Amino acid sequence: MTSTTNPSFILRAVKDVVLGDIPKPQIEGAHDVIVKVGQTGICGSDVHYWQRGRIGDFVLNSPIVLGHESSGTVVEIGAAVKNLRVGDKVAIEPGVPCRHCEYCRSGSYNLCPDTVFAATPPHNGTLSRFYKTASDYCYPLPEHMTLEDGALCEPVAVAVQICKVGNVKAGQKVVVFGCGPIGLLVQSVAKAYGAKVVIGIDISQSRLELASSVLKCADGVFSPPSLPKKPDGTAYSIDEESEHSAKVAQIIKDNFMLGEGPEVVIDATGAQSCIQTGVNLTKKGGTYVQAGMGRENVVFPITTACIRDLTIRGSIRYTAGVYPQAVDLVASGKIQPQKLVTHRFRFEEAEQAFETVRRGGEDVLKVMIEGVRD
Amino acid sequence: MTSTTNPSFILRAVKDVVLGDIPKPQIEGAHDVIVKVGQTGICGSDVHYWQRGRIGDFVLNSPIVLGHESSGTVVEIGAAVKNLRVGDKVAIEPGVPCRHCEYCRSGSYNLCPDTVFAATPPHNGTLSRFYKTASDYCYPLPEHMTLEDGALCEPVAVAVQICKVGNVKAGQKVVVFGCGPIGLLVQSVAKAYGAKVVIGIDISQSRLELASSVLKCADGVFSPPSLPKKPDGTAYSIDEESEHSAKVAQIIKDNFMLGEGPEVVIDATGAQSCIQTGVNLTKKGGTYVQAGMGRENVVFPITTACIRDLTIRGSIRYTAGVYPQAVDLVASGKIQPQKLVTHRFRFEEAEQAFETVRRGGEDVLKVMIEGVRD
Amino acid sequence: MTSTTNPSFILRAVKDVVLGDIPKPQIEGAHDVIVKVGQTGICGSDVHYWQRGRIGDFVLNSPIVLGHESSGTVVEIGAAVKNLRVGDKVAIEPGVPCRHCEYCRSGSYNLCPDTVFAATPPHNGTLSRFYKTASDYCYPLPEHMTLEDGALCEPVAVAVQICKVGNVKAGQKVVVFGCGPIGLLVQSVAKAYGAKVVIGIDISQSRLELASSVLKCADGVFSPPSLPKKPDGTAYSIDEESEHSAKVAQIIKDNFMLGEGPEVVIDATGAQSCIQTGVNLTKKGGTYVQAGMGRENVVFPITTACIRDLTIRGSIRYTAGVYPQAVDLVASGKIQPQKLVTHRFRFEEAEQAFETVRRGGEDVLKVMIEGVRD
Amino acid sequence: MTSTTNPSFILRAVKDVVLGDIPKPQIEGAHDVIVKVGQTGICGSDVHYWQRGRIGDFVLNSPIVLGHESSGTVVEIGAAVKNLRVGDKVAIEPGVPCRHCEYCRSGSYNLCPDTVFAATPPHNGTLSRFYKTASDYCYPLPEHMTLEDGALCEPVAVAVQICKVGNVKAGQKVVVFGCGPIGLLVQSVAKAYGAKVVIGIDISQSRLELASSVLKCADGVFSPPSLPKKPDGTAYSIDEESEHSAKVAQIIKDNFMLGEGPEVVIDATGAQSCIQTGVNLTKKGGTYVQAGMGRENVVFPITTACIRDLTIRGSIRYTAGVYPQAVDLVASGKIQPQKLVTHRFRFEEAEQAFETVRRGGEDVLKVMIEGVRD
Repeated sequence: MTSTTNPSFILRAVKDVVLGDIPKPQIEGAHDVIVKVGQTGICGSDVHYWQRGRIGDFVLNSPIVLGHESSGTVVEIGAAVKNLRVGDKVAIEPGVPCRHCEYCRSGSYNLCPDTVFAATPPHNGTLSRFYKTASDYCYPLPEHMTLEDGALCEPVAVAVQICKVGNVKAGQKVVVFGCGPIGLLVQSVAKAYGAKVVIGIDISQSRLELASSVLKCADGVFSPPSLPKKPDGTAYSIDEESEHSAKVAQIIKDNFMLGEGPEVVIDATGAQSCIQTGVNLTKKGGTYVQAGMGRENVVFPITTACIRDLTIRGSIRYTAGVYPQAVDLVASGKIQPQKLVTHRFRFEEAEQAFETVRRGGEDVLKVMIEGVRD
Repeated sequence: MTSTTNPSFILRAVKDVVLGDIPKPQIEGAHDVIVKVGQTGICGSDVHYWQRGRIGDFVLNSPIVLGHESSGTVVEIGAAVKNLRVGDKVAIEPGVPCRHCEYCRSGSYNLCPDTVFAATPPHNGTLSRFYKTASDYCYPLPEHMTLEDGALCEPVAVAVQICKVGNVKAGQKVVVFGCGPIGLLVQSVAKAYGAKVVIGIDISQSRLELASSVLKCADGVFSPPSLPKKPDGTAYSIDEESEHSAKVAQIIKDNFMLGEGPEVVIDATGAQSCIQTGVNLTKKGGTYVQAGMGRENVVFPITTACIRDLTIRGSIRYTAGVYPQAVDLVASGKIQPQKLVTHRFRFEEAEQAFETVRRGGEDVLKVMIEGVRD
Repeated sequence: MTSTTNPSFILRAVKDVVLGDIPKPQIEGAHDVIVKVGQTGICGSDVHYWQRGRIGDFVLNSPIVLGHESSGTVVEIGAAVKNLRVGDKVAIEPGVPCRHCEYCRSGSYNLCPDTVFAATPPHNGTLSRFYKTASDYCYPLPEHMTLEDGALCEPVAVAVQICKVGNVKAGQKVVVFGCGPIGLLVQSVAKAYGAKVVIGIDISQSRLELASSVLKCADGVFSPPSLPKKPDGTAYSIDEESEHSAKVAQIIKDNFMLGEGPEVVIDATGAQSCIQTGVNLTKKGGTYVQAGMGRENVVFPITTACIRDLTIRGSIRYTAGVYPQAVDLVASGKIQPQKLVTHRFRFEEAEQAFETVRRGGEDVLKVMIEGVRD
Repeated sequence: MTSTTNPSFILRAVKDVVLGDIPKPQIEGAHDVIVKVGQTGICGSDVHYWQRGRIGDFVLNSPIVLGHESSGTVVEIGAAVKNLRVGDKVAIEPGVPCRHCEYCRSGSYNLCPDTVFAATPPHNGTLSRFYKTASDYCYPLPEHMTLEDGALCEPVAVAVQICKVGNVKAGQKVVVFGCGPIGLLVQSVAKAYGAKVVIGIDISQSRLELASSVLKCADGVFSPPSLPKKPDGTAYSIDEESEHSAKVAQIIKDNFMLGEGPEVVIDATGAQSCIQTGVNLTKKGGTYVQAGMGRENVVFPITTACIRDLTIRGSIRYTAGVYPQAVDLVASGKIQPQKLVTHRFRFEEAEQAFETVRRGGEDVLKVMIEGVRD
């Protein structure tokens, strides 16, 4: 009944993708499930592997299937699977950890070094007709959620994890640098968690507009002034940049009447100037979360961070309970990630979809690829 | 009976100190106490004000008395004082917060912007015959503790606070960069807290010797290799330094069989190379504490910190319960800060004492100044 | 200009109240403020002192003014007051702690043994024309909030504190036993904090109606079945009661599809049967909060609590940040405590107001007393 | 080479044990290991199943092998095992959870409902020649640790878990009710964690002697006075018992100069009088841990617990990191559980060993059974 071929979107080498066929996966372990992939979102990291072939220690040495933000329909289940039935619509958490290391056993499975993460070399991603994963990493969707909603649970889960490490709580003031998909979703999650004030920062007016008027996740938005070019063309010194960052932080506090500053600042840009402004902005004793990654090393205002007694955190992947929370938030309508979708492609147009993300631009937010049509 | 003059060691302006007389303080509030100062340790920040006249936003605009690591004997108490009696030997916590701001009310009095902190402009320090403070910021010493022990509770309290923000717990592996007074005391506190392994890092062999053989606070010590000068005299790039730091981190892990790395890394140096090595060294999900302050800005391996899911903390002053804990640790003999004292001066020799600290050198650890003799 | 007499509602002895005059308070300390009381809610504890003359260790030995849930207008301020101006409308946090004990210094001022708490013997309450308190325990109200709203911040703050000790977080399932004012406000706060599901339990249909339809704070409501009287008139054994509680817990889980159970259960009744059902209901690893107090001792399912690895917490008064949060929640409209007000009295009718609360009944929720009219 | 029979100590039905043979386990999963059992301690729960056939919901419906506190030598390993080699001496953590449920994934594997726990019906225990388990639930012992030490890691792990839920930290005052094996080990762990003062409570002078002079884990010991029998033979009322408990708590505070009380109280008895005294004794804001289980329901001073803002916790099994910590504590000599061993039996004498524990008495602490001799 179910198709036996398994068309896939394969990254053969840097900048070399192809639509091909790979063997249909088979149930082996008792907890395995086979999902017919329904929708897949594209993320910056997918494009990064395509264009560069590596992220950190993960290097493309042999072809892999791309894609990791997916939903689908369960078509087969292993003998021990109790949480799913054939026919269920599910969101797929893209990394399955080893379950045996001390990180897994202590609840920090996002740190497991042996995680099988979709589309992270050497593991295949989800842009196939069929994808095999573990039953407990698939989350059934309520009937009113579409497969597109289900795929969008991935970036929502990233935002939930960021708010978790930032310990975002009701009543807090939260400032988020960056109004791309992750920044906007972080703002939405903070709002759903009862944050008193959420401020979105970006240099793109159209994205600020999204935050304030479309998603309505920000109570206020701001485009920070950048340092004008020096007349003599020389670069600013670290001290000058540092002083500018402190000034911008003060402007943000004044503009939005943030008093001692926001309890939580989240940077979803990775830009050095945002990092510096963010650290200066955070309330004493508060939390600064580095959610966006840019350069390996940045000039960091370490003394300010110490004197202000900040807690600095990163955010990586998702931990237990995060994906279910993402599904709940979307199911309840508190988070509406569909509003982020700007482009939709059929499976056969996958390369065009990737090209759209690579090209970027203000009009490109979330790009979706439909699953293989039978 | 008690003397009425109040000889003091006064910083009049940058590099301009003098022994002078200031008015003897009087009990005003019901919680006030007057302490006859017994012993005072000198700290880098005292010397900094002497030589530079400012630390961050605190600027010397008018003369202040120096000194903030002191103990003494209670000579007068206000009407509401219940925890002390005249004649008690006490350790003096040098900062008294406002008690009314939200930081004070929520238990983060180390962040109170209105703290009266000894020897921080414009507030007088403790290098006087008599010092007035609040009764709840004086801690009675058991009989067997000397006034020198009492004064040394200050750097011990700094170390206790560092271990508190680092959440140092029994069974952990802890690596401390720096074997100066604070680094050594942090190692000692970690050991007293039941750390499984404590490693001390420094480039001075004599200080490593102190850690391993005199204070016996480190289970292992290590002098990290530095990058040799390039033959062509050019500086190393950030990437090259970064790579070197990662290598040194690996050497430390291998040398001391630290497996996935220490759960807690504490930098008590402020040096950029130590910071970079420390972040690379910390176990995934672990805590890195910036205890030493150097430059305002450092090149920081932010992506590594994020991917490893580290918690980065600073440490500033002391919070509730820290000073009593420091007194207990010294009283029990678990921490022996007396072993750090390398020089002792009479009150009249205060400038010489300061000069000794300024000059520095491997043989200078803790320098003490006796109180005014009657 | 301001009146010089200070009419007050005084409890002279058990069951003996009178409208009298006491001296108008004067500014003494630099942080003092005098508030002209605007509105006061009545609470069970006020009535308890009136009827019994004691709560625990607090015994009425001399007359006190009653009332502690108040708002008002600032009429005088001490020299150091910066957060308030004469004319400000404020909510009054009714307990001012000593600021010097270890509880105060560590942020647990709700445990301070020397707190001056309104209407707790021997301290006067707020049912006077003028009330003196500390400036940092008064919170300015935004213009759109009424003085009644301000007084109602007190029970909202109680609910906020309960949710704080219960660590109520977005996405959780929360069950609250009791739909009186505190129970309803706890449900409202949990909802405002993003709880996924809130269930209210009570035996009064009219109160359940309030929860589900008027305040709309509960997603579901339930009236638990009680054990029918035994035909032979004998009492049920502890084991029989225990078994019944476990059954009711299971019914609640089944009825509301709570799966493994709610992460947080809050009992705002103090009734033994609710306590037993609540402990059986809480999800393994979850939190059970005892918010309502009834008998000193109850038969408690200790083994079930242990095996389920529950955290059991009480809630007492308010800690730092709780009152501001209550004001914010009311100001934003997320919590609407006005809907709880069933009776309003003028100051001269205070005894009648107390009598209304004492009499109780389903129609009596929150009873307010206006301040003295000039 | 290795023996093929598998002699075992089997509980066939209530009070019916026999030495029999069961099939030798085989490696099936890639993470399986076969351990030749070396030493096994007997615990109250083993005896409970023998005498009663059930504990809570776990009911003996078919024969099981008894024993769960064991160590041994690895004789076979599955294909994926990396942490162990054949010949390794190991401590065996007796429960292997499902790894798939939300408790397992979030690091609370002690709550997993599908745990295969040794000697908990219907699962076989460790009193066999060979026992199969999962490699990550076996911990290699350093060479200087004996197999007896390894088996004793089980009760040490129980004590470590208790101190973990009690959040026992350096500098605290800790009171432990009960000086049986668990109570004594809890005191030892608290001491190793840097507790300032540890007090052991018991009614047996010989056990108090153990605490103070043999294990030296308690800084002070105390035998609480019990209520004398009433002359008229009637029972004390709950109020009278309650009052007595409060008095005993005060005596303990006075005797050991505990000031506001211990930050942590741990009850390892399950006795109602100890529970009541313990709650009254705990410092405001402190933690009370119910470690011993007695009756299903006890009369509990709920109002006192609330007003004192206590955190009440139970302790069940072990969580991640606890067993390794137990091995480390024994390896370092900080904990010396060997001193608790009062009886040693050969495998053939297993029933006699069980009988010794059942009989009990002051001279019976830890009873060990050797593994099958080849």
